[in-house]
Amino acid sequence: MRDSQCRQSLRLRETICIYLTTLLIILGVLVSSFNPPNPRHSPFPYRVPLDPQGVAELDWNVSYSQEVVYFRLLIRQLKFGIIFGMSDRGDIQNADLAVLWSDGQNSYFGDAWTDEEARIHLDTQQDYQLVDAHQSAQGLYLTFKRPFNTCDQRDYIIEGGTVHLLYRFLNRPITSVKSIDLKEMPGGLQRVQLLKPMIHTPPLPSDIKVLEVLAPNVTIPDQETTYWCYISTLPHHLPVHHIVMYEPVITKGNEAIVHHMEVFQCAPELDRIPSYSGPCDSRMKPPRLNFCRHVLAAWAMGAQPFHYPKDVGLMIGGANFSKYLRLEVHYHNPLRLSGRLDSSGIRLFYTPTLRKFNAGILELGLVYTPVMAIPPGEASFELSGYCTSRCTEQSLPEDGIHIFASQLHTHLAGTKVKTILVQGGVEVDIVNVDEHYSTHFQEIRLLQKEITVKPGDVLITSCTYNTEDRSHVTVGGFGINEEMCVNYIHYYPQTQLELCKSAVDINYLQKYFTFINRIDDDRICSCPQVPVTQQFEAVPWSPFSSQVLKAMYDFAPISVHCNKSSAVSFPGNWEGQPLPQVTAALAKSRDHCQRSSHMAPGEATVVQLTANKPGE
Amino acid sequence: MRDSQCRQSLRLRETICIYLTTLLIILGVLVSSFNPPNPRHSPFPYRVPLDPQGVAELDWNVSYSQEVVYFRLLIRQLKFGIIFGMSDRGDIQNADLAVLWSDGQNSYFGDAWTDEEARIHLDTQQDYQLVDAHQSAQGLYLTFKRPFNTCDQRDYIIEGGTVHLLYRFLNRPITSVKSIDLKEMPGGLQRVQLLKPMIHTPPLPSDIKVLEVLAPNVTIPDQETTYWCYISTLPHHLPVHHIVMYEPVITKGNEAIVHHMEVFQCAPELDRIPSYSGPCDSRMKPPRLNFCRHVLAAWAMGAQPFHYPKDVGLMIGGANFSKYLRLEVHYHNPLRLSGRLDSSGIRLFYTPTLRKFNAGILELGLVYTPVMAIPPGEASFELSGYCTSRCTEQSLPEDGIHIFASQLHTHLAGTKVKTILVQGGVEVDIVNVDEHYSTHFQEIRLLQKEITVKPGDVLITSCTYNTEDRSHVTVGGFGINEEMCVNYIHYYPQTQLELCKSAVDINYLQKYFTFINRIDDDRICSCPQVPVTQQFEAVPWSPFSSQVLKAMYDFAPISVHCNKSSAVSFPGNWEGQPLPQVTAALAKSRDHCQRSSHMAPGEATVVQLTANKPGE
Repeated sequence: MRDSQCRQSLRLRETICIYLTTLLIILGVLVSSFNPPNPRHSPFPYRVPLDPQGVAELDWNVSYSQEVVYFRLLIRQLKFGIIFGMSDRGDIQNADLAVLWSDGQNSYFGDAWTDEEARIHLDTQQDYQLVDAHQSAQGLYLTFKRPFNTCDQRDYIIEGGTVHLLYRFLNRPITSVKSIDLKEMPGGLQRVQLLKPMIHTPPLPSDIKVLEVLAPNVTIPDQETTYWCYISTLPHHLPVHHIVMYEPVITKGNEAIVHHMEVFQCAPELDRIPSYSGPCDSRMKPPRLNFCRHVLAAWAMGAQPFHYPKDVGLMIGGANFSKYLRLEVHYHNPLRLSGRLDSSGIRLFYTPTLRKFNAGILELGLVYTPVMAIPPGEASFELSGYCTSRCTEQSLPEDGIHIFASQLHTHLAGTKVKTILVQGGVEVDIVNVDEHYSTHFQEIRLLQKEITVKPGDVLITSCTYNTEDRSHVTVGGFGINEEMCVNYIHYYPQTQLELCKSAVDINYLQKYFTFINRIDDDRICSCPQVPVTQQFEAVPWSPFSSQVLKAMYDFAPISVHCNKSSAVSFPGNWEGQPLPQVTAALAKSRDHCQRSSHMAPGEATVVQLTANKPGE
Repeated sequence: MRDSQCRQSLRLRETICIYLTTLLIILGVLVSSFNPPNPRHSPFPYRVPLDPQGVAELDWNVSYSQEVVYFRLLIRQLKFGIIFGMSDRGDIQNADLAVLWSDGQNSYFGDAWTDEEARIHLDTQQDYQLVDAHQSAQGLYLTFKRPFNTCDQRDYIIEGGTVHLLYRFLNRPITSVKSIDLKEMPGGLQRVQLLKPMIHTPPLPSDIKVLEVLAPNVTIPDQETTYWCYISTLPHHLPVHHIVMYEPVITKGNEAIVHHMEVFQCAPELDRIPSYSGPCDSRMKPPRLNFCRHVLAAWAMGAQPFHYPKDVGLMIGGANFSKYLRLEVHYHNPLRLSGRLDSSGIRLFYTPTLRKFNAGILELGLVYTPVMAIPPGEASFELSGYCTSRCTEQSLPEDGIHIFASQLHTHLAGTKVKTILVQGGVEVDIVNVDEHYSTHFQEIRLLQKEITVKPGDVLITSCTYNTEDRSHVTVGGFGINEEMCVNYIHYYPQTQLELCKSAVDINYLQKYFTFINRIDDDRICSCPQVPVTQQFEAVPWSPFSSQVLKAMYDFAPISVHCNKSSAVSFPGNWEGQPLPQVTAALAKSRDHCQRSSHMAPGEATVVQLTANKPGE
């Protein structure tokens, strides 16, 4: 009988059925009471503020055995609910949402989704499952779980890379989720890596020393985006040490504003770097700071302390190491709060007892050159850079190198980045992939497992770009409106190889220009006489010219940069190299998904707010 | 408690749980007892034999309101079960199966699927649902239903075009579906259109006459494939009549061998066609039979009688109509049965009381020319033919024409065919589509709804080809190893327009040959001096040359054939026409799917075989 009532109109269902199923659901909540998986110090080892005022905060944990993420939201000043969810790029359209809402009397929790027009619907399959809800002195704690991959076509699949979280606050009671207008609601977007790798943290040595690279007493500018530059120095005459760990130091209260930070090593060739503490784009910034570009450490919101593998350390100090470090802090201050003081930075842990291996950093991807270009108006245009077998053969030790971390990098148009390991023409492993890459969220990420690259192996780094909002071609280069495709891989043991990248052979590009210019009107192209960027600007862009360019990039020979630390190429001719052939693609990991409890459409869970914490 | 037992090992689950859930399932079968939807003469109006011996037969019905297909299998000599299912092209890999099996004691029914290696697994979501199973004098009747689109990623989606059914017979008892080796089992493949359109059948006029076009006393050759040709004559001095209906006449006992039949009109210009009854490919066949190519009627297995719309008839007789008809019967005789006699054919129903409109047949798609080619090794290569707005403007009446039926046509490599109606640059409707097209199953299909085409509209016909098993290029043409892309649309009122097709502009194709030949070695191409087919043969095929060809076809201007019945073009210059632009694609019909009851993985239904028919 309850069933037949439930099949009445949607509105009725949302109100009547909820009451009728209350008892059942309370039972359900008790049954699925919380057993945190894999506790690592805390049951929720990862934390990120959601909004820039810190009203809402997300803690989470990952169970790889269950393939489930446990989320715990702390909402300090709950009004009539909160919407939390995930979508491809953080948009409120086509999003996958957990909604807590109140009609003024009762509170409800449900799994919902938004359509192309950002209209919100309760989902027929409830995959965000409530585990616990209770009030505390800090605010409301709401704990729920979600499988990585539900079998629901409307649901977001939680993957290893960046996840765009979105949140909205409900400031008035609502009777039905359908009445929510997401476009009108306060809230925002937060990027995190949800699926942190499960890695055993090696113990710190007893002779550990600490160096805090902090930008002291910065008054955070009252503008949305600031990159703050600060020059720090090493202890005098520091002999060679190994950095074995680093962690963020964030001034209390600024957790929601300090977005990410990087420490760069300056070029050892320069004797002196002037001291500086100010915006990185200021005209007052000494030009010499541009020689401090070699990444030493990087942290972004939600990231854990970075531990080097047990036998590995990153060199610092000694004769060939600059005594200057540049700290860059990205303040994200969308509320334009003014007068906030900050002294955040990164704390390096280093030891004089050198470990067995030096860590090295190798740059993969595309050469910074305009020959690699992305046509305008493309939703998804992929470029690939190759580290060829000829280069790895000459540069890597017989036992190979072991990659343990990776930092992906593009400029504004990049949306995906991936590096694949190819052995004997067969794709054998993914070094790193981010299907939701954002230039605004660049972390050094520890890999779930170390990847070994042997002499003769090939590494293919592919970047996908979106240029739908651009009317001009985007060429490769250093400028923020030009593009890059880079994966900095962190590996051991260190080798001489610093850079293994490629770009298309210029002769083939010229044939492309000739063909495209002649196809329509037989005009003779003066192409080779003008710079490549200008030739690209002159292309009549159409699906045709774009598709032929794409086909050409995937076919033409390449010019390979296989460089030693000294920016000098390994011996040999690296021009006109054949494109590495891939005869077998990686088997797609079988679409493994977990069905959650099945509910009638529009059904939601009544939330019992308790004042004490059950089951923890 | 039952639940926890169910979570034991898969093997245990398959044996223990089945017994434990028996009671529940019997109840379930009773509850979902059979209520045939939309009865049309019979509760199962459509019928097709599955195997060439007629051991198994499929009846079915479609409920468009429920979006469900009701299947009824009759298995005359059941041994230990039957496997019935669907897959993209009839392969046993990646198939979606209903399995009835017996362990020697009990019978079970379940929804299963096969993986890439044709290994069989019970599905976690049971979408083939048993409705009834009973023994009768004829054999076992097994009735089950399946939604068009389940929400299961592993399931086949039942669509409007061809469906490849597969079947296997179990000849020994099995303990678990996992032990079934599909590769070793007897069975085969049958193509049908499952989703027949719901169309009201107009009554036949009282003055109806009947003409049976039958090939009498044919001894079916004991070879797998025979196309039998027979010349039939019209009644003497037949004045103009309208064909308003036709239906198959199949010799009893040969239902599983007569695969499809077509009646062709001969060219009225030829006074006499010699009589003939023999294989179509025989050297004894009089050459004049090649002038009998204009389709008048077509039937294929599973097709219903073909009724013209109420006010429409197809002209037959009169001064401008040949008195000769050619009947072509395709015998499919994989068991090479010998000595079978057959007198099948098509029965035409025609009336002297002419209806308001003459039906016309218009040929859409690609011109039969080698300039349209498919590279070798392509899994899915699409070519499009255009009926441009300039042509429809000149040839169609102000109120437009109404398409009510369509016959799609390609040769062996075709896998999909579709015609889209474009108005003002916007895709507005699908005229006809078959996502699982097979050259071996060509029916004239009534459309679910009439499509009106007005002057100025554009019709785009696209065919997708698979040439993975070919090492040479496939060019357009008449030969069986060349390709076609055609949609014969049946419409009213009849106009002068007989053919509206296109091919790429030859000048652009020459630029393509020049570019492709120069890209690698700068050799000068002697292209324009040799025939196009030879130039295509000389192309160094690679993903690059294929992709550039595809991009060129989707970009270059076209040569349009806009022809009257007399094979004479409508006035105007039809060369170098711009490709019709499509600014908005058809909104994808929202992936509407129905979840079926959710079971623990590996659970199956125990089948209670009753000797009488319940619930019918």
